[in-house]
Amino acid sequence: MTKMALAVLIQGTGAHPASWLQTETAADASTDIDYYKAAAQLAERGRFDLFFIADTPAARTDNLHAWSRFPMFMNVFEPVTLLSAVASVTSHIGLGATASTSFYEPYNVARLFASLDHLSHGRAAWNVVTSANDYAARNFGLDRLPPHGERYERAREFVSVVQALWDSWEDDAFIQDRESGRNFDPAKLHVLDHHGRYFKVHGALNIARTPQGQPVIIQAGASNTGKDFAAATAEVVFASDSGVAEGRAFYQDLKGRMAKFGREPDDLKVLAGLPVVIGTSAQEAEDKYQALQSLIHPDVGRMRLSNDLEVDLSDLPLDEPVPLDRIPATSNFHQTYFANIAGMIRRGMTLRQIYMSYERGLETVRGTPIQIADRMEEWVAGGAADGFMMLFHTMPGGLRDFVELVVPELQRRGLMRADYEARTLRGHLGLKRPPNRYAQAAEVAPIAAAAE
Amino acid sequence: MTKMALAVLIQGTGAHPASWLQTETAADASTDIDYYKAAAQLAERGRFDLFFIADTPAARTDNLHAWSRFPMFMNVFEPVTLLSAVASVTSHIGLGATASTSFYEPYNVARLFASLDHLSHGRAAWNVVTSANDYAARNFGLDRLPPHGERYERAREFVSVVQALWDSWEDDAFIQDRESGRNFDPAKLHVLDHHGRYFKVHGALNIARTPQGQPVIIQAGASNTGKDFAAATAEVVFASDSGVAEGRAFYQDLKGRMAKFGREPDDLKVLAGLPVVIGTSAQEAEDKYQALQSLIHPDVGRMRLSNDLEVDLSDLPLDEPVPLDRIPATSNFHQTYFANIAGMIRRGMTLRQIYMSYERGLETVRGTPIQIADRMEEWVAGGAADGFMMLFHTMPGGLRDFVELVVPELQRRGLMRADYEARTLRGHLGLKRPPNRYAQAAEVAPIAAAAE
Ligand SMILES: Cc1cc2nc3c(=O)[nH]c(=O)nc-3n(C[C@H](O)[C@H](O)[C@H](O)COP(=O)(O)O)c2cc1C
Ligand SMILES: Cc1cc2nc3c(=O)[nH]c(=O)nc-3n(C[C@H](O)[C@H](O)[C@H](O)COP(=O)(O)O)c2cc1C
Repeated sequence: MTKMALAVLIQGTGAHPASWLQTETAADASTDIDYYKAAAQLAERGRFDLFFIADTPAARTDNLHAWSRFPMFMNVFEPVTLLSAVASVTSHIGLGATASTSFYEPYNVARLFASLDHLSHGRAAWNVVTSANDYAARNFGLDRLPPHGERYERAREFVSVVQALWDSWEDDAFIQDRESGRNFDPAKLHVLDHHGRYFKVHGALNIARTPQGQPVIIQAGASNTGKDFAAATAEVVFASDSGVAEGRAFYQDLKGRMAKFGREPDDLKVLAGLPVVIGTSAQEAEDKYQALQSLIHPDVGRMRLSNDLEVDLSDLPLDEPVPLDRIPATSNFHQTYFANIAGMIRRGMTLRQIYMSYERGLETVRGTPIQIADRMEEWVAGGAADGFMMLFHTMPGGLRDFVELVVPELQRRGLMRADYEARTLRGHLGLKRPPNRYAQAAEVAPIAAAAE
Repeated sequence: MTKMALAVLIQGTGAHPASWLQTETAADASTDIDYYKAAAQLAERGRFDLFFIADTPAARTDNLHAWSRFPMFMNVFEPVTLLSAVASVTSHIGLGATASTSFYEPYNVARLFASLDHLSHGRAAWNVVTSANDYAARNFGLDRLPPHGERYERAREFVSVVQALWDSWEDDAFIQDRESGRNFDPAKLHVLDHHGRYFKVHGALNIARTPQGQPVIIQAGASNTGKDFAAATAEVVFASDSGVAEGRAFYQDLKGRMAKFGREPDDLKVLAGLPVVIGTSAQEAEDKYQALQSLIHPDVGRMRLSNDLEVDLSDLPLDEPVPLDRIPATSNFHQTYFANIAGMIRRGMTLRQIYMSYERGLETVRGTPIQIADRMEEWVAGGAADGFMMLFHTMPGGLRDFVELVVPELQRRGLMRADYEARTLRGHLGLKRPPNRYAQAAEVAPIAAAAE
C-alpha cells in the first residue's frame, strides 16, 4: 500500500476564523516564534512531510471593523525568515513557504529559497502564488492586481528564471582545491542570459546548488490557467475539493495535463486540503465544530464572502437568498473561490447559510480518529489524492490530537511511515532530485557556459 | 569609562582574501549553517553587541579565473535567512544583515527585518547599502548600476518608506480582547500613503510593531553623500580609516552633520572597521599576517584593484608604478575605495605594493592581546570611535583568540561589559527605542489614520 503524504498548514491560532476567540489558543500565536517552533516539532513527531506557511504580502487597510474580528494576515511573520528559524530546531520535516511572483524579483526569491534549502539541509519548498488581493498590489506601486491571466504569465516566466538560477552552479562546481588554489571550477558556472516579457536577468546565483538540487515547487491554482501552470511546473499541488468524486476528477484532470509538458504523473503529488475536528465521539466532534461556527460574527462572514466574490455584500439581510444580480460578471482574485460562492447563491442559499458553510471549497471532516482515518483512506484509495494538506481549526490542540490519535491509526493501517526514511523533503515525498540542466546538456552540446 | 561597542563581520573562512587556503579554516564554511551558528555562539560568549553579515546580490560572471582563487560572494547564504536560523541558537547578540535598496522593494525589506526582529526578540539590524557592482545590476534588469547620487536618492526614499511601514501599527494596537471580539484596535493602524519619485506605497505592514520599535539602521557610506545619508538616518556607522587622527576627523565630521537633521550625536554609534591578527608576540602576529599576505595570488590582487578602481589593470607589470593616466576620471561604485587606490597610485606605488597593502581603507593591526587592547583603547579614548567592527582574517581561529585573549583584557580595563545587561540590540548599544510617529503625533494632531 502506498504511503500518503502529509502536510500541515499553520496559521497562528488555527484555520478557523474564530479560533483566536477560543481560550485554548494563545491569542498572540501568529508572531510567537516559540509557538511555531513547538508546532513544527509536534508535526515532526507526527512524521509529517511538510510544515507549510501561507502568505500574502499585505495587511487589510479598509473594513477594519470586520477584520479586527478576524485578523487573518494582519500580523504574521514573513514565511521564509520564520521557517529559517524553525529549521534550527527541527531535523527532518519539510519547510514550505509562500512567496508571490507578482511582487518579488526572481533573483531575490531564488536566493531566499536556495538559502533555506542549504540551511535546512534539503527541506525547502516554495509555494508559488500570484497573490489575489488589491491590498498587496497597492504595497507595490499598483492600484489593483493585474488581470488573472497576466499574473499567471508573469508567474510562468518568474519560475523559469528562478529554476534556471538554481542551476547556475553544477553540483560539483565548488572543488575547494587548496593545492591548485581553485575554489571553484569556472567551467561549472553557467550564466543565465534571460530576456523575457517581464524580466531581464543576466547573471548567476551566488550560492551553490542546493542539497535538493532545487527546492520543491508547490502550487495551488485551481482555475484552468492555474491547473496548466501546475501541470507544467509544480511538484506538489494543494487541491480543494470537498468530495471524493470531485477530488478524483481534479486529480485525473491535473495529472492528465502533465504529459503535454513531458512529465510523468508521479512527478507531482496532489495533496487534498483537509480541515478536521477530532472528538472521542462523532457527536463531540460535531459539537466542537458547531461551537466554533457559532462564534463567526456576521460582519466577518459577510466580509469574507464580499472579499472572495469581489463585490460588497454589506447591505444584504442575513437570512434571505442573495439576489442573483449581485454576482459580478467576472472575477480576478481566486477564480475557484468565486465560482464556489456564485454556485451557492444560484442554489438559493441565504447569506448566513453561505458563510456558515463556505470554506473556500473545502469541508471540515468531524469525527473520531477512526472515522477520520477512514475518510483519508477512502480518499487516497479512491484515487482522489496522494495525501493531505491538513488544516486544524484550533492550535496547537487540533494538531496534537491528530498526532496522538490519528497518526498511529494511519501507521497501523500502513498508510503512513513509522519513521522518516529520508532527510530531505524530496526524499519524504518520493520526488526525484532534478539533474542540473547544464550538466546534462554538456554531454550533448554546451549551453551558455560562462566565458572566462 | 564608557564601554565600547563591538561588532564582528563574519564571511565564510575569514576576511582575508586567501583565508580559504589556510588548512585551519573549513573551505566550505560560507554555506555551512553549523559553522555560522558556532561563530555566533562564540561571539555571544565574547559579549559582542552585533553579529554582522555583509552582502551583495550577485555572483561574479567574468574574470572567473581570478575569482575562482578568491571566491568572495560567489557562494553565500542570503543574510536574513541565515540570521533567522542563527537567532534560534543565540539569545542576546544582535543580528545585522545587509540588504540593497537598489534591488529590493521597500515592503519586502520592511517585512524581512520586522520578522527577524520579532523572531529574535529584538536583535535585528539592517545594513542599508546601495550596492556597488554591475553584476548586481544585471540580475535586476539593468545593464549597469545607476549613478552613485541616484542610488543614494533612491536609498533615502526607500529607508523612509520602510521606517514608515515599521510604524504601521502602534505598540499597543493588538489588544486581543476576546470579550469584545476585537483582536486589534483599528484606530491604531496607520496606513501609509506614499507617492515618491521611486516608490508608490499605499498600505500597512502585516506584522505588529517590533520589540525594538524599529530594527536598528546601519550604514557604511563614506562619500560626502554617504555621510549625509548616515547622519540623517543611521544608528550605527561602520567607518574605515586607518589612523586615530583620520578616524577622529571622520567621527567629528559625521556627528557634526547630525544636528541639521535634528539628531543628537549619541543617536549614532561609529564603529571603526578593525582587522586584527593576534599572536603571543608581536613578531608571531606579524609572521602570521605576512604568511597570509604571501598567499595572495597576483591575479587576485590585480583583479581586486581593477574592481575598486573601476578599470582593467590586467595588462600592467606588477613591479612598476601604475601610470597616472590609468586613474579614471570618475567612479561609480565605492567612491572612497576608489579615492584610496588613486591616492596610492599618485604616491608612485607599484601594482604589487598597492594590492599588498590595500584593505579598502583599513589596516590590519598585528600584535599581542595587550597591544591590540591598547590600540582599541587609544582609538576610543581619542574620540575616533564608539567601538569596533572586528574583522578576523581566518575563522573561527581569529575570533576565538580574540574572545579568549583580548575580550578579558578589555573587560579588566572596564572597556567592555562583563555580561549582557540588556536583551535587545538597542539595549546593548544604548540606542533609544524610537517612539511610534503616529502615537506621538496623536496628542497634537492625528496623521493619516486609517479609515474604518
Ligand atoms: C491549501 C492552500 C493554500 C493556499 N495558500 C495560498 C497562499 O498562501 N497565498 C495565496 O495568495 N494563495 C493561496 N492559495 C490560493 C491559490 O494559490 C489559488 O489562488 C487558488 O487556489 C485559486 O486558484 P486560481 O487563482 O487558479 O483560480 C492556497 C490554496 C490552497 C488550497
Ligand atoms: C564594515 C563595512 C561593511 C560593508 N558592508 C557592505 C556590504 O555588505 N555590501 C555593500 O554593498 N557595501 C558594503 N560596504 C560598503 C559601503 O556600503 C559603502 O559602499 C562604502 O563604504 C563606500 O561608501 P560610498 O558609497 O559612500 O562611497 C561596507 C563597508 C564597511 C566599512
